[in-house]
Amino acid sequence: MLAATCSKVKVARLAVVIPLDADRARSELALETLKSLVADDLGNVNTVILERMGSDVPLIPELAGHLIASGGKRLRPMLTLGAAKLCGYTGGRHINLAACVEFIHTATLLHDDVVDESALRRGSETANALWGNEASVLVGDFLFSRAFQVMVADGSLAVLKILSDASAIIAEGEVAQIATRNDTTTGEDAYLDVITAKTAALFAAACRIGAVVAERPAAEEEALESYGRNLGIAFQLVDDGLDYASRDAAIGKTVGDDFREGKTTLPVILAFRRGGEEERKFWRRVIENTDQQDGDLEHAVQLMRACGALDDTVARARHYGAKAKDALGIFAASPEKAVLRDLVNFCINRAH
Amino acid sequence: MLAATCSKVKVARLAVVIPLDADRARSELALETLKSLVADDLGNVNTVILERMGSDVPLIPELAGHLIASGGKRLRPMLTLGAAKLCGYTGGRHINLAACVEFIHTATLLHDDVVDESALRRGSETANALWGNEASVLVGDFLFSRAFQVMVADGSLAVLKILSDASAIIAEGEVAQIATRNDTTTGEDAYLDVITAKTAALFAAACRIGAVVAERPAAEEEALESYGRNLGIAFQLVDDGLDYASRDAAIGKTVGDDFREGKTTLPVILAFRRGGEEERKFWRRVIENTDQQDGDLEHAVQLMRACGALDDTVARARHYGAKAKDALGIFAASPEKAVLRDLVNFCINRAH
Repeated sequence: MLAATCSKVKVARLAVVIPLDADRARSELALETLKSLVADDLGNVNTVILERMGSDVPLIPELAGHLIASGGKRLRPMLTLGAAKLCGYTGGRHINLAACVEFIHTATLLHDDVVDESALRRGSETANALWGNEASVLVGDFLFSRAFQVMVADGSLAVLKILSDASAIIAEGEVAQIATRNDTTTGEDAYLDVITAKTAALFAAACRIGAVVAERPAAEEEALESYGRNLGIAFQLVDDGLDYASRDAAIGKTVGDDFREGKTTLPVILAFRRGGEEERKFWRRVIENTDQQDGDLEHAVQLMRACGALDDTVARARHYGAKAKDALGIFAASPEKAVLRDLVNFCINRAH
Repeated sequence: MLAATCSKVKVARLAVVIPLDADRARSELALETLKSLVADDLGNVNTVILERMGSDVPLIPELAGHLIASGGKRLRPMLTLGAAKLCGYTGGRHINLAACVEFIHTATLLHDDVVDESALRRGSETANALWGNEASVLVGDFLFSRAFQVMVADGSLAVLKILSDASAIIAEGEVAQIATRNDTTTGEDAYLDVITAKTAALFAAACRIGAVVAERPAAEEEALESYGRNLGIAFQLVDDGLDYASRDAAIGKTVGDDFREGKTTLPVILAFRRGGEEERKFWRRVIENTDQQDGDLEHAVQLMRACGALDDTVARARHYGAKAKDALGIFAASPEKAVLRDLVNFCINRAH
């Protein structure tokens, strides 16, 4: 009787545990699964990207190619492709528009490198470090203009509105981030505004475009926009956590970049608010004054771990991830819906 | 009899001299005349500019206002207004589109400051010097995106095409300029390609838009595009001459900026090609190696004057100016046509 109960409990536990593992396994593969679902389209997007980043000025394809062709994960254009497929789109417009999304993303990366002086991005030296600030800025301008040329050729004012709005919001977010930097009084809401603008706006636009080309009703456009926005927020939260928690190899960027620049990302905000006077003195020195010495980064990570700031940054990400998944609720079950849901977990779990 | 002949000659001379002086006087006033011809429209453009450069992120209007509101000469938006008026346009679309032209121009200035590290522009410290490279880049991105938002609201794919094409060409020109810098083998044609792209493309687009909103035939669009392009080339040639020939106060930028950066503008190209071996050694040291000492700038100007490089830079400008004026030939006589013609002389004669 007792044995039977125990066995039942064991079974019940297994019944809970197995799906979780399956969830985890699926989420780990989500990016690969999405990639294979949209493989043909993605190949075409890459062709468009290589064609349209061409120029008679050799430095342009050279520098742009460093970032684009060397291949990031193409997450944002894949969102456009996945969203279009989810909406049952069978035309070809999403190819060029996904390329536009990647061009805009690459332009912001190039301009961000001027800002960030990040020594390492995507596992290689930044374009900025290799070619200088001015070339990075100008090639970024070229890619940005090229994106608008491709959109104009597509001919949809709706799409042009979505991506020009997103571009303005991204720039506003990046400028707002400058204002919060080195300011330990920055609150979580101000931080959230910044990442919603600088990161989530393009995720949202990338997804929404899928519904627009498929000419789906407004509710589906809005659902995909909400999915993208919440996924983007979760993505950036995790990214900001990884800047303190990961080893270089895992994310291909330098750990401690945000710290060295005195960025007030959520891990810092939480650690500052949860810390005592001694700790706040530390944060003010390293973040406000960026007066940093050997061992300060390690101490910062230690303080963050001790107060749960890193775990709770991921917890916040899970909240937005949950919203992203629920936003997809109005779509009928499909392989695309499943993989877009799994992609949320992928973004949250990466490198943890 | 003799006295009568002399008197006739004198009259004939006067008859020649007076119109030339009148030409000169009119050209000196051309910018003011254009400004008063489009005064109401220009006031509305300024209102749109102030409204649309607004943002909840205070740094944006602050920094953009430094360049925009402190008031450049608004030459490019006035070209749109003047061209629209020349085409008999009576609607209101040119107001917003002229603001777009100014936003794109300001964005390129902000990004150019990163490039140029120019200590003085428009008689005040650069935004770059005051707010840093990163803020300049990002606010430039914002203004650029805002320009596209305003164009999208206008709703003309034709205008969107003209300005996205121009933007891509401008960026290409700026990148091409990097490639020719510090290279004394740069030829006049390569230089011409650079300035046609980086400067004349926006002049051409600004003018063309005037015909587009007025829904004039293709020939008039092309005439205004040609006027703008040739005016822009003449403008930049004179600008590049002034970088060696003017005093600071006259143009509100630092004399010798181009020299210090080792830019191969036409005065350098001509002086290098006309110089002997000793002089070429000098140019290679100061331009290729930017190994510059006290007195080098003065020596450079001396060499340029001696070989006629500065005068001939202006002579080249006159050639393009003449083309610009002839491009307007297909339009019937009107005050707008007259002032646009005079504006060519204004651009060429300024500060000489």
